[in-house]
Amino acid sequence: MSPNAEIICVGTELLLGEIRNTNAQFLGQELAQLGIPHYYQTVVGDNLIRLQRAIAIACQRSNLIIFTGGLGPTPDDLTTDAIATFFQVPLIERPEIIADIQQKFAHSPHALSANNHKQALLPEGADILYNETGSAPGLIWEPRRGLTLLTFPGVPSEMKDMWRKTAVPYMKSRGWGTAQIYSRVLRFCGIPESNLAEKVAPVFDLTDPTVAPYAIDGEARLRISTRATSQAEAETLIGTIEQQIKQQCGIDCYGTDDDTLASVVGELLLNRQETLAVAESCTGGGIGQRLTAIPGSSGYFVGSLVAYANSIKVDLLGVQSQTLDEAGSVCAAVAEQMAEGVRAQFGSTWGLSTTGIAGPGGGTLEKPVGLVYIGISGPHGSPQSWSYQINALPGREWIRKISASHALDALRRQLL
Amino acid sequence: MSPNAEIICVGTELLLGEIRNTNAQFLGQELAQLGIPHYYQTVVGDNLIRLQRAIAIACQRSNLIIFTGGLGPTPDDLTTDAIATFFQVPLIERPEIIADIQQKFAHSPHALSANNHKQALLPEGADILYNETGSAPGLIWEPRRGLTLLTFPGVPSEMKDMWRKTAVPYMKSRGWGTAQIYSRVLRFCGIPESNLAEKVAPVFDLTDPTVAPYAIDGEARLRISTRATSQAEAETLIGTIEQQIKQQCGIDCYGTDDDTLASVVGELLLNRQETLAVAESCTGGGIGQRLTAIPGSSGYFVGSLVAYANSIKVDLLGVQSQTLDEAGSVCAAVAEQMAEGVRAQFGSTWGLSTTGIAGPGGGTLEKPVGLVYIGISGPHGSPQSWSYQINALPGREWIRKISASHALDALRRQLL
Repeated sequence: MSPNAEIICVGTELLLGEIRNTNAQFLGQELAQLGIPHYYQTVVGDNLIRLQRAIAIACQRSNLIIFTGGLGPTPDDLTTDAIATFFQVPLIERPEIIADIQQKFAHSPHALSANNHKQALLPEGADILYNETGSAPGLIWEPRRGLTLLTFPGVPSEMKDMWRKTAVPYMKSRGWGTAQIYSRVLRFCGIPESNLAEKVAPVFDLTDPTVAPYAIDGEARLRISTRATSQAEAETLIGTIEQQIKQQCGIDCYGTDDDTLASVVGELLLNRQETLAVAESCTGGGIGQRLTAIPGSSGYFVGSLVAYANSIKVDLLGVQSQTLDEAGSVCAAVAEQMAEGVRAQFGSTWGLSTTGIAGPGGGTLEKPVGLVYIGISGPHGSPQSWSYQINALPGREWIRKISASHALDALRRQLL
Repeated sequence: MSPNAEIICVGTELLLGEIRNTNAQFLGQELAQLGIPHYYQTVVGDNLIRLQRAIAIACQRSNLIIFTGGLGPTPDDLTTDAIATFFQVPLIERPEIIADIQQKFAHSPHALSANNHKQALLPEGADILYNETGSAPGLIWEPRRGLTLLTFPGVPSEMKDMWRKTAVPYMKSRGWGTAQIYSRVLRFCGIPESNLAEKVAPVFDLTDPTVAPYAIDGEARLRISTRATSQAEAETLIGTIEQQIKQQCGIDCYGTDDDTLASVVGELLLNRQETLAVAESCTGGGIGQRLTAIPGSSGYFVGSLVAYANSIKVDLLGVQSQTLDEAGSVCAAVAEQMAEGVRAQFGSTWGLSTTGIAGPGGGTLEKPVGLVYIGISGPHGSPQSWSYQINALPGREWIRKISASHALDALRRQLL
């Protein structure tokens, strides 16, 4: 059987939008990596009838159904029950699961709940998918020939751990994931998706590899994909198109795959054996957070100062009170003085700064919400600054995120 | 007709996990707010046949179908086409849309793409859903009696803007959203979901309001929901249970609904007219970012210092070199000295600090990955510190996020 997967995410909290469906994203990435086609995802609430209907539809169009959620100890956790009743098989209490849960709670200040017993019930014939980091186990079950079900808890960390330790080896043992889909994502900044798409239009007519455009977080991306039996085989096909696009787009293409603006800036600094300090106002710590998300960032990132109060800009970064009085905290001169000040204070090669109006309040006709200045101070010449008017409609977090991207991109362009 | 919604999110990038489905979350929240029941979400790729199959299933079980994605200018944007062919209605070019796009591009450095014309095609009979912030318009269409379709672009900011400006008024004009679902979410820290569930178990048997437990980002939550015709009516039902749960759980319940640890800490500081400065090591800016995500945070947050290099801890925070030499940077004394130092440097009432091992490297038997110290320095007494061993399995970002939560929660408990 060649597998054809569907993901069913169970939970009323997903439908109500109380939590974001990160599990579907993770599983999508993993299935793509394994080369297992996956054409549908369904989200359904904690309701026995609707869950059974979703199972009925999935069984007709897919032969590998991956469930997340609904395995917990509480009465609204219904996934195992829905599966057993749909396939008309009784639930059997598994002593191995009780023993496993008891052992986990042995050293815990929290006692084993009576309702943890519910988690020990699995349909007759199903194999246990152990959960090393939580109490809810999952199952692997072939209720009929050519149909495989896998269930995972909704807690992302538990689900991921179980997926890697149990599901992936199982798939590989079934011989799935031999002809994998290989993709490369090219990441751009400074060019809108539709203009990028027009610039490279002929590549969309290719059939192998295929090229598809999309946009995320204000950045345009291109995905080059092919189905191949080895990395080397894929590389030949993907690499040619990748080089062609990169030549066409030049510096606007900042990286590939897992690269981020922060990781690309980090690599440039590491190669030059230079260091960076950041002075953040409107971004409030977001640039530091993005830089330090990269393991090993201590090799070039010395630190940052979030100068939220104006007094801190003056006292700790040496911004001139006169400049603040005359032009306010959101202007080119303050951005430059912040960059210069943080470089001096932290003794780094480069200083990078942001000051802007993130809203929702604080905007004026002259300086509207979304206006941001980026300052850079480096080893040569005077500090420089750039201003950006960011679309304010998506709100404060968007403005802060795009500001941080502009800052990292401005530094990247300086370092190139 | 009483509405019964389904969300269909279109995009191969969603199936491949390249982007996270934030649109489904937003629409789920909005539908809940409007009191429009919503039982299913489907994600399908950029494929005409499968998209039509998803439409066929949705039409059978739902009468209000909301699409996101697949409206862009590129050839793999197929939503409008799939809808028109499924209902066997021709696509008609709308001059109003061409005019609208031309006007938007008039002042842009980027030219109108030839493929923007594709965006002007809508099924005969459908109404245009204008997109003020982007080029792709959507549609509102009743292809047959009792079935309404709405389409939105996949770009979250454009989708949200259109939803609020056009879809919500449309729903209300249809008389939908009169008996709304009201919910209150109670947020907890310091107690696992299953223990919380056992502690408050009898509330799960209630039928109006209903109470459901779930967990997210290491925090347990309880959702209390009821269907009512007014906020006041809902308040009576929800408020009684809310008070009962809060009395049972005490300080472990830190807030409700949109409260965050950062907003709750901010409110406490504001009430006390006190200020906060933060010294971050392993969290790298994340605490500052969470605090400054709250509009008006400049009223109590003066700033933060990310002391990533040890030299910065010594030079700018006054951490003793001897302590670093003897005990390393991850220890109680360094956390306390950082908190004390940042409070002195920034002249704030409170100083909060983090130092820990976020991994993946850098762990030892004695100090494993996930070990984090939180320091607090306040107006009375000596600085204090607490240590946490965070589950390292979910990885670096999880450890950093939970560390920031522990830090904010430790300060919250001090302020109460």
